[in-house]
Amino acid sequence: MKFCSNCGHNVRFAIPEGDDRSRYLCDACGAIHYQNPRIVAGTLPIRDGRILLCRRAISPRMGYWTLPAGFMENAETTLEAAARETREEACAEVEIHDLYTLIDLPHINQVYMIFRADLIGDFAAGPESQEVAMFAEADIPWDELAFPTIERTLRHYFHDRRDGVFPLHIGAIGLQDRERYFGSA
Amino acid sequence: MKFCSNCGHNVRFAIPEGDDRSRYLCDACGAIHYQNPRIVAGTLPIRDGRILLCRRAISPRMGYWTLPAGFMENAETTLEAAARETREEACAEVEIHDLYTLIDLPHINQVYMIFRADLIGDFAAGPESQEVAMFAEADIPWDELAFPTIERTLRHYFHDRRDGVFPLHIGAIGLQDRERYFGSA
Repeated sequence: MKFCSNCGHNVRFAIPEGDDRSRYLCDACGAIHYQNPRIVAGTLPIRDGRILLCRRAISPRMGYWTLPAGFMENAETTLEAAARETREEACAEVEIHDLYTLIDLPHINQVYMIFRADLIGDFAAGPESQEVAMFAEADIPWDELAFPTIERTLRHYFHDRRDGVFPLHIGAIGLQDRERYFGSA
Repeated sequence: MKFCSNCGHNVRFAIPEGDDRSRYLCDACGAIHYQNPRIVAGTLPIRDGRILLCRRAISPRMGYWTLPAGFMENAETTLEAAARETREEACAEVEIHDLYTLIDLPHINQVYMIFRADLIGDFAAGPESQEVAMFAEADIPWDELAFPTIERTLRHYFHDRRDGVFPLHIGAIGLQDRERYFGSA
């Protein structure tokens, strides 16, 4: 951020009076521009013990497999966001059960929320997917998953499935986990 | 948003090519300025069956009672945000258990995440609180609560406490619930 989105003046990055962290400040109009984490909402769509995955047609991680998920939009709920992303990326409808993984990525200011869901009806690749397919546990392409959040969600699921109990898993993924996927660049 | 925060040019509000909703667009530098919901993280601090509430010293809803909660910041986790807000507003430390309520407010682009927690040690009013106090169920100031998210979280808790089971409650609060608190202005 270089310019005030309210008045167009230059902004500076400094701690406002009464605050304890730096913000983008406009000395012309007085605006303080807060920046906050974004929610990535998605689903773990299941049918007959198999999981729906999408092969990404867009960067980042084009060609790698992911659960349907994306940035939550204004004016929708988390459940609506998760269902919409599933519709957009996999042309699929889901019946959503519980929130299953809540994963913080503080180094990139994201919070993943993946809901366990039953896949309903047909599916097909949406514009952001090269391919959409169902995978049994033995066939999951572990080395070709797009993001560590996806790997972690799948590992929780296959572990929990043995007991048939699916509690919410809260966790965080740091730079180390991320570098396994993306390198240190 | 009137000006591009990247280059200072005027923005327009229109649907970008390949998208399906309006964004703030800069024709000069090509930036697309996405806007997304913000997370409000907080705790339900409990000790000896009583709940810690804070009387707000700032607007909105100054003078009304709330659970300690506030906007999650970049570079922190949801658990860190909930604990930090509790420390700032009630000068209190907590041992956080589970995520207890996840409440969407799509009309104001917020997602509340309140964690059930044990209150540890002392407490006192932080700079954003007029007063901090512990309340038994019979003493909760139901007519002086700051936000419908707080009322709903407390009602879930006192209901669940009878059975000793505290599942995650996912819900949404719309304009109607909000108008009970704020009027239709």
